[in-house]
Amino acid sequence: DDQTTTTYDIELIPGDGIGPEVVDAALPLFQAVADDHGLAFDITRRDWGTEYYLEQGEMMPEDGVSRLADADSIFLGAVGHPEVPDHVTLHGLLLPIRKGLDQYICKRPNVLFEGIESPLQGYGAGDIDFVVYRENTEGEYADIGGREHRGLDHETAVQSALFTRQGTERIVRAAFEAATERDGHLTSITKSNAQAHSMVFWDDIVEDVSKEYPTVTVERLLVDAAAMDLIRRPHEFDVVVASNLFGDILTDIGAQITGSMGLAPSGNIHPSDDIPSMFEPVHGSAPDIVGDGVANPLATVLSWSMLLADLGEQTAADALWNAVANQLADGSAPRTPDLGGDADTKAVVDDLRSRL
Amino acid sequence: DDQTTTTYDIELIPGDGIGPEVVDAALPLFQAVADDHGLAFDITRRDWGTEYYLEQGEMMPEDGVSRLADADSIFLGAVGHPEVPDHVTLHGLLLPIRKGLDQYICKRPNVLFEGIESPLQGYGAGDIDFVVYRENTEGEYADIGGREHRGLDHETAVQSALFTRQGTERIVRAAFEAATERDGHLTSITKSNAQAHSMVFWDDIVEDVSKEYPTVTVERLLVDAAAMDLIRRPHEFDVVVASNLFGDILTDIGAQITGSMGLAPSGNIHPSDDIPSMFEPVHGSAPDIVGDGVANPLATVLSWSMLLADLGEQTAADALWNAVANQLADGSAPRTPDLGGDADTKAVVDDLRSRL
Ligand SMILES: CC(C)[C@H](C(=O)O)[C@@H](O)C(=O)O
Ligand SMILES: CC(C)[C@H](C(=O)O)[C@@H](O)C(=O)O
Repeated sequence: DDQTTTTYDIELIPGDGIGPEVVDAALPLFQAVADDHGLAFDITRRDWGTEYYLEQGEMMPEDGVSRLADADSIFLGAVGHPEVPDHVTLHGLLLPIRKGLDQYICKRPNVLFEGIESPLQGYGAGDIDFVVYRENTEGEYADIGGREHRGLDHETAVQSALFTRQGTERIVRAAFEAATERDGHLTSITKSNAQAHSMVFWDDIVEDVSKEYPTVTVERLLVDAAAMDLIRRPHEFDVVVASNLFGDILTDIGAQITGSMGLAPSGNIHPSDDIPSMFEPVHGSAPDIVGDGVANPLATVLSWSMLLADLGEQTAADALWNAVANQLADGSAPRTPDLGGDADTKAVVDDLRSRL
Repeated sequence: DDQTTTTYDIELIPGDGIGPEVVDAALPLFQAVADDHGLAFDITRRDWGTEYYLEQGEMMPEDGVSRLADADSIFLGAVGHPEVPDHVTLHGLLLPIRKGLDQYICKRPNVLFEGIESPLQGYGAGDIDFVVYRENTEGEYADIGGREHRGLDHETAVQSALFTRQGTERIVRAAFEAATERDGHLTSITKSNAQAHSMVFWDDIVEDVSKEYPTVTVERLLVDAAAMDLIRRPHEFDVVVASNLFGDILTDIGAQITGSMGLAPSGNIHPSDDIPSMFEPVHGSAPDIVGDGVANPLATVLSWSMLLADLGEQTAADALWNAVANQLADGSAPRTPDLGGDADTKAVVDDLRSRL
């Protein structure tokens, strides 16, 4: 065999709840794809998350982010625990990684696969296919604000959204780039009519950057109208660029109209080769089904496909993505309960392997 | 005739675009309902809006808000103009009235009427019926923030959301009250996992106020999950309470899943008898169809029904509301083009009159 093997260092954080279940079930599939394409994964497993927190008092070691920094890529299973507040689990793990590694693009494709029924009337396979570029490090999730006069009648809370020119320009530019490689249509989401300080700034930057991309058509949409239009005319969206909060809301709508949270993949991306990106399913740790072995692995598989594409391994990425598409299109293939079937996680993964 | 007549002072701002068209077409209907129920409207018409702005340089006179303050109620047709930026038209008219008269409740019912097809599969008449109580005077639309280092690399914009205890408690309490009169279920919308300063404060207040309403069940939902759940399980919502921005987004989704923006009414309410509330359709001025005489008047009619209910004239309010419901349920009744028909505004209004 004269094939050379490319090895990638992957940091794997299975995390909480169904995270480890799904990741462990899917790893043999990822290994098989690697074998097929002359790749190898050198995986460092980090047992960080809520169990770690309950023992150590923190979700990951203090130098956690820097331990990840030399990897080629990072994969996160899920995070969140019913007994620990979200602001502990998220601010202790997910958000510090996104911010610490400056993964400023949250990329979320929304595709209606053949074999999946949209909750929207009249939408079939292929009718919905757009990608959201969500700003991932600042905006409405900046940790700026406070509470004063606690417990008194005049108690007041302030939460400040922060938009920098650098931070806004780079996500807008990434979205324009994506549009040039897709159908050349970009929708920029704001709420300029009610948030004149931040959102008019955003509009101005979109206007500036658009001059560099004369072939891309730009549509401005208010976030409330966009939420409506994703239900009314989702087929007309191509690339969507939005702030942290607006992107968060619109991608959840995107997941829902394309059939299920169980299918939605995502990447937290810093485009430079020197900084690892992190891939994760959009769904959470699903405490209600932990241990049942029936969690849907498809969002994890699609996220791993995005990881491979990000590493430049497009053929291997396509192999995984197509295996999922073929399985969903096949009415007799196994499905987990969330997709109306009665198969377990392992059966779905095994079936995917047979389709590689 | 020994019937006594109750007279109400109504301030009428037909506004821009289809606003005046629809209001003028609907006034005879409102007059007819008044006659039927021993009411009279003493209407003061204010020709404020964008035409006024183009002549006078302001959307309404400087003392506009105080001129409205003595009315029993206010009705607004629509506001917005393609040639004048939203932040001029809205900040010059709609928003100063909401804030100036402290109309802190934005009440938006979302009902799937018989005869209207939801874009969601499997939802029929009556399956969707919830009301949103949106905070209407502060939160994410507070005019606090700015831009610094204009045009430079380190330019930064800040937009601050402001939540006061008073402002939050009163909208939360209004929503709990509504829940006691409906199905006793309240959903509170936050984003506490990512906006810990403002939204944990909101959660704390919901927790406090809930103790006064032991019969109401309270569900907390993150705004992204709520957007999804309004598509996945809209039948499970009863009363929703949300901040200004979150309420804005969720009510637009509510309008869409119940069939059309052309059907969505709303009230900007201050509950005290001394301060007038303002009612308006949720839709805008629809510049694309201005002058064609085919604008859908139903959101305006339903909003006038809400105005009557707010004045305590529930029987008259029901007459209008039921006329709309009956018309929609009647497959041979006239409909405007946005609802798939070819009738004009006047034909729809005339038909409603015949159903009173
Ligand atoms: C868990 C939460 C902080 C997170 C977010 O809003 O970023 C999630 O909703 C997501 O979309 O990845
Ligand atoms: C026009 C705009 C400022 C307004 C709002 O967001 O309040 C509108 O969207 C609404 O919902 O009434």
